[in-house]
Amino acid sequence: MRLLILNPNTSKSVTERIAAQARATAAPGTELLLDTSDRGVPYIATRAEATIGGHVALEMLARRQGEFDAAIIAAFGDPGLGGARELFDQPVVGLAEAGILTACMLGRRFAVVSFSSTLEPWYRECVEMHGLSGRLAGIFTLTEPFRDIARVSEEKADKLVALCGSAIREGAADVVVLAGAPLAGLAPVISDRVPVPVVDCVSAAVCQAETLVRLAPRKATVGSFRRPSPKPTSGLDPALMRWMEQRPDVQG
Amino acid sequence: MRLLILNPNTSKSVTERIAAQARATAAPGTELLLDTSDRGVPYIATRAEATIGGHVALEMLARRQGEFDAAIIAAFGDPGLGGARELFDQPVVGLAEAGILTACMLGRRFAVVSFSSTLEPWYRECVEMHGLSGRLAGIFTLTEPFRDIARVSEEKADKLVALCGSAIREGAADVVVLAGAPLAGLAPVISDRVPVPVVDCVSAAVCQAETLVRLAPRKATVGSFRRPSPKPTSGLDPALMRWMEQRPDVQG
Amino acid sequence: MRLLILNPNTSKSVTERIAAQARATAAPGTELLLDTSDRGVPYIATRAEATIGGHVALEMLARRQGEFDAAIIAAFGDPGLGGARELFDQPVVGLAEAGILTACMLGRRFAVVSFSSTLEPWYRECVEMHGLSGRLAGIFTLTEPFRDIARVSEEKADKLVALCGSAIREGAADVVVLAGAPLAGLAPVISDRVPVPVVDCVSAAVCQAETLVRLAPRKATVGSFRRPSPKPTSGLDPALMRWMEQRPDVQG
Amino acid sequence: MRLLILNPNTSKSVTERIAAQARATAAPGTELLLDTSDRGVPYIATRAEATIGGHVALEMLARRQGEFDAAIIAAFGDPGLGGARELFDQPVVGLAEAGILTACMLGRRFAVVSFSSTLEPWYRECVEMHGLSGRLAGIFTLTEPFRDIARVSEEKADKLVALCGSAIREGAADVVVLAGAPLAGLAPVISDRVPVPVVDCVSAAVCQAETLVRLAPRKATVGSFRRPSPKPTSGLDPALMRWMEQRPDVQG
Amino acid sequence: MRLLILNPNTSKSVTERIAAQARATAAPGTELLLDTSDRGVPYIATRAEATIGGHVALEMLARRQGEFDAAIIAAFGDPGLGGARELFDQPVVGLAEAGILTACMLGRRFAVVSFSSTLEPWYRECVEMHGLSGRLAGIFTLTEPFRDIARVSEEKADKLVALCGSAIREGAADVVVLAGAPLAGLAPVISDRVPVPVVDCVSAAVCQAETLVRLAPRKATVGSFRRPSPKPTSGLDPALMRWMEQRPDVQG
Amino acid sequence: MRLLILNPNTSKSVTERIAAQARATAAPGTELLLDTSDRGVPYIATRAEATIGGHVALEMLARRQGEFDAAIIAAFGDPGLGGARELFDQPVVGLAEAGILTACMLGRRFAVVSFSSTLEPWYRECVEMHGLSGRLAGIFTLTEPFRDIARVSEEKADKLVALCGSAIREGAADVVVLAGAPLAGLAPVISDRVPVPVVDCVSAAVCQAETLVRLAPRKATVGSFRRPSPKPTSGLDPALMRWMEQRPDVQG
Repeated sequence: MRLLILNPNTSKSVTERIAAQARATAAPGTELLLDTSDRGVPYIATRAEATIGGHVALEMLARRQGEFDAAIIAAFGDPGLGGARELFDQPVVGLAEAGILTACMLGRRFAVVSFSSTLEPWYRECVEMHGLSGRLAGIFTLTEPFRDIARVSEEKADKLVALCGSAIREGAADVVVLAGAPLAGLAPVISDRVPVPVVDCVSAAVCQAETLVRLAPRKATVGSFRRPSPKPTSGLDPALMRWMEQRPDVQG
Repeated sequence: MRLLILNPNTSKSVTERIAAQARATAAPGTELLLDTSDRGVPYIATRAEATIGGHVALEMLARRQGEFDAAIIAAFGDPGLGGARELFDQPVVGLAEAGILTACMLGRRFAVVSFSSTLEPWYRECVEMHGLSGRLAGIFTLTEPFRDIARVSEEKADKLVALCGSAIREGAADVVVLAGAPLAGLAPVISDRVPVPVVDCVSAAVCQAETLVRLAPRKATVGSFRRPSPKPTSGLDPALMRWMEQRPDVQG
Repeated sequence: MRLLILNPNTSKSVTERIAAQARATAAPGTELLLDTSDRGVPYIATRAEATIGGHVALEMLARRQGEFDAAIIAAFGDPGLGGARELFDQPVVGLAEAGILTACMLGRRFAVVSFSSTLEPWYRECVEMHGLSGRLAGIFTLTEPFRDIARVSEEKADKLVALCGSAIREGAADVVVLAGAPLAGLAPVISDRVPVPVVDCVSAAVCQAETLVRLAPRKATVGSFRRPSPKPTSGLDPALMRWMEQRPDVQG
Repeated sequence: MRLLILNPNTSKSVTERIAAQARATAAPGTELLLDTSDRGVPYIATRAEATIGGHVALEMLARRQGEFDAAIIAAFGDPGLGGARELFDQPVVGLAEAGILTACMLGRRFAVVSFSSTLEPWYRECVEMHGLSGRLAGIFTLTEPFRDIARVSEEKADKLVALCGSAIREGAADVVVLAGAPLAGLAPVISDRVPVPVVDCVSAAVCQAETLVRLAPRKATVGSFRRPSPKPTSGLDPALMRWMEQRPDVQG
Repeated sequence: MRLLILNPNTSKSVTERIAAQARATAAPGTELLLDTSDRGVPYIATRAEATIGGHVALEMLARRQGEFDAAIIAAFGDPGLGGARELFDQPVVGLAEAGILTACMLGRRFAVVSFSSTLEPWYRECVEMHGLSGRLAGIFTLTEPFRDIARVSEEKADKLVALCGSAIREGAADVVVLAGAPLAGLAPVISDRVPVPVVDCVSAAVCQAETLVRLAPRKATVGSFRRPSPKPTSGLDPALMRWMEQRPDVQG
Repeated sequence: MRLLILNPNTSKSVTERIAAQARATAAPGTELLLDTSDRGVPYIATRAEATIGGHVALEMLARRQGEFDAAIIAAFGDPGLGGARELFDQPVVGLAEAGILTACMLGRRFAVVSFSSTLEPWYRECVEMHGLSGRLAGIFTLTEPFRDIARVSEEKADKLVALCGSAIREGAADVVVLAGAPLAGLAPVISDRVPVPVVDCVSAAVCQAETLVRLAPRKATVGSFRRPSPKPTSGLDPALMRWMEQRPDVQG
């Protein structure tokens, strides 16, 4: 199967981290397609940036129609996820969604641990959006600046291990989700220094996307996730416009 | 004061409805600036369209910086609201938010009544996002097609009155919020045929935007709604890029 | 329009604070009627006192029927609000309700900050009653005694600024509601020392009461906020009895 | 032990019903003191009446200080309960509280069944106030008028049996609480016609009040249910004023 | 009446503590039958042990059918409670359920205080199961080891008093539930050193079981707590198998 | 990898259904071990039976220690899941848990559809236990008897398709979870007759168990899912006793 992993950020270096961890996880026979946004910000961290990133994710998915069996929106707050799930025929999984749902099978209370306090409100609202606040042990973030988004994982590894410890002690976390694409690959590295299970979101998302392809669910044709009726559009990305207008050459 | 009312849809005819009702409501001394999106869809009705509309709303706000004291995002699901509130210095109010918070002061349980069942999931998730599901008496929508979005209010007035009745009987609604910009102006028209208070979202939003200007709250400089730090951007609307990058000529 | 602002406490000095801030906020053309209870306690702070205050608020509203277009119950826990909204034809707004609903338009999580820990349980139950606990960042109160309820605002200004800081740091509050009529007028004074928006409840209530009058909602004639059917009463305030019995000379 | 059962309504005939069922339930050695309010309404059914009734309940408790070991506020919506629990030293139980907490030990989901749709909003808010909405199977009320509050139990017995059936079928109720003092004594009469347990609120309240006396809990001296500090009062019931002011002759 | 108090643990010494406190509480005329499990663990403290204990409780109840009017499952997490309530005709009460529901009548927020941090997750999930998390002030446990489960009450009395203080200060607890059968009898001993009401679970359970017998609720014959239809079984306790298969000699 | 799929029921015919669907789903290289309980009931359907089944599941897992990499408890209500996750070192997944978490990635609101109304309360409490009631569109069950648990899937296929339709129309379900091991294999058969995605629980559980093995999470050594300390036991299954006592020959 072909999985499209789309990074709605413009940081190719982060895409490379994601790609490395995805390759380490993917099943034999899974082909990975990586895509980095050519517009937006280097790293989404706020509500406004997530709003833009959601639109960008839809554009990226529209452009790649026909090339993949399932897609992963590789930013932790899952920008554009609901719209993508409604608009397109293939299963789409968010990094946060995959991470926290997987974590739910490893314990009762999961903590979200990340590297920047700026991310906290967005991540909190993302957990609320998924209806899982009742199982959230807390969101724990570092508060000091970092040097390079593509290397924050190495730079802050020790501090993140300590923060996982806080999540366990103060939040009674049964499991930790390392949040944010820049932390891809960190979970296996620190696993033996954190005394509860640690979930790598990229690995979780790859497995969950594969799961959805294997289960071969049909696209809804009624209800809230059916494909919207064709509609005139203007001023949007050409591929997205074609898809939304359901022009004959692109209909699914 | 100057209120910017932005319609993130491309339907100028809907903007005119909004404008008429806003003018009927606005206080003496309130100047109204109306703006219709030049890209997107004629009428946002799905999660995907709301995702796009959220981005569009941010663009429109960025372009008009310096011209207004508060803004209204005039689409019921409040696309882009959180991001707008964080990114810009002026108060920003959503049509749904203003309608349902106002309704909370007129009863215990509010119903959302609208003209298309397609809108239901988006509206439901909007009420959840605002944390007010506990007071929601239900979302009641017509299920049959309509002819013209700009005239749906007149076309369906009788059926909407009947639907308000259902919301009261079946949902035990204490108050009804007429949802969606195309219904602007309908509340006063049908008020004497609905035996509980009916809220016009545009009128509510105008009053609430005026309220926020009158209270003169400061812009947060810490926490989750502080203006995000400057960040490199690419490929976005020029005004939005300038604002996000905080280039000297545009800093607030 | 005429707004009745009723203080269900017996402290005329607090009513004067309320009046000053209300006058500073009210729109041109809004006439303010101030009323101080002639029975009860100087300052409601407990559940028992709020129970009494709720009854007192109904009496005060009954006595002033015909004189006002909307009313404000000017005690933060909103004593008697539900009953008042049901019993009388004019819109009625509570100080807490107006403050927290307004705060919801200025951020995601609001903190309630006040001057006495005695108030904390009542305020907490008030937020629960309004169904907004999911957005509450916490209730933060001073714990030391104060000298004079009418001057607590000046006496404790510095400490309240510090407490707002705690609410922001420890509660991740996006906005602060200064709670309690004795703090009327403090928000604008300390606004530049608190790095998030601060809401003055009296100002919020005046604007919200004006909003409700401007929207001209009808009185419910069915459902849970319709006026109760006439009923025999005994031993109550004469005006309230007349109103509840719907004697011909007083029917609305 | 001596239990004070206070009816905050003015209907002596209802008090007699309560008394009969209480006597049938009370343990040997329990002395029952019955008290009917001399002011208010014949039967509380709305928020406004409950507000008044809450105050009345406090007055009645203040007047009888020294005469009882525990008290029951014998109106289903528990008017004045929180204030009473805070103000006085003896345990105080509400009719609704006792009924629904007892029902929780007889099944997972309880229905509230009563004789008048007017009562529904008050009862719903009462269940919310107790934090037990998550276990509520629904509130089911008759919708037609009744002749005599003191005989509604006999008049509507058959219809209430049918309504219990609806609660079981439509609400998946595991247990039914017959709500309202006028239904005292009905549960044992209809028990063999309702296929799940039926709780009589007066019986439940008598048992729960006895339980609290037997457990001999101390009065809180700190926290939210400590007795409030003495405070000047004016214009209230003399006994209540003495108690709130903690004048030497009445201190507990 | 005859109350069966069953200890699903194998510690006879704990059963003796329970028995002593139950005898001190029981009404005249209540006969107590005590039963200690002959299999399982000395003291249930984890989810796995509670799972086993739930099964054991059902076995014990099946073996004693015909001997009792109501039963108490005397372990704080209420193992097997739902199944017992469904399977058997007599009322069954859990120690936690009785303790926390009783506590709800003594304040708004109850804390659970116990002697071992191992118990915390089980107790938390028990409160969630009962739908009362909204009233939980927190679960507070000692963290250090104890010597003898049957004497932990005496050994840790001072530390538990201090922990009650933490629950009040940090959790704003209005009432404390001393959790776990080994703490039976401690509440009256420390009551004057804890400034809010303290609930003894065994005493609460005895009173509540008596209450249920006195109310004489019928066994459900429809719905979720009706006795399950007869079913073939294999490999279980003979008495339990007979009961589940509803063999003629044992039908209720 | 080796997956143990344990059926805590005694119906070998149901195990065969499970096995067939699991084999159809499992990845190449996944070895399936099937195990049917030798004690209990043919098909768990009530709380009491689930309590017994939870204990049985722990016994089965203890006996097979050393033989598998992850386990699936193949009964929809997930009997014994929490205890198993805590007691053993390998990942353990429940059928309900896997089904509903997977469904969460295919829509916003999931319905649970099953063949017997007896199952409804158990399933509802299971969804509550997992903290996902906020996303539940309802539990929809057939109400008429079935002939053979091993053939109910074929016997009721048409009626279950119709019931899925009800779940979509009345519950606004975005996705349907076919609940209960006897329905294993039905989802792909009826998929083209149900207009939203349908989840097969056995397939979902196989994929999720594989996911957990691939992610290689460590066993918690602190917190609520650490392996409990060794403890004396008596009267239990020998393998379970050895494991709980951590005798040298069996330590993990």
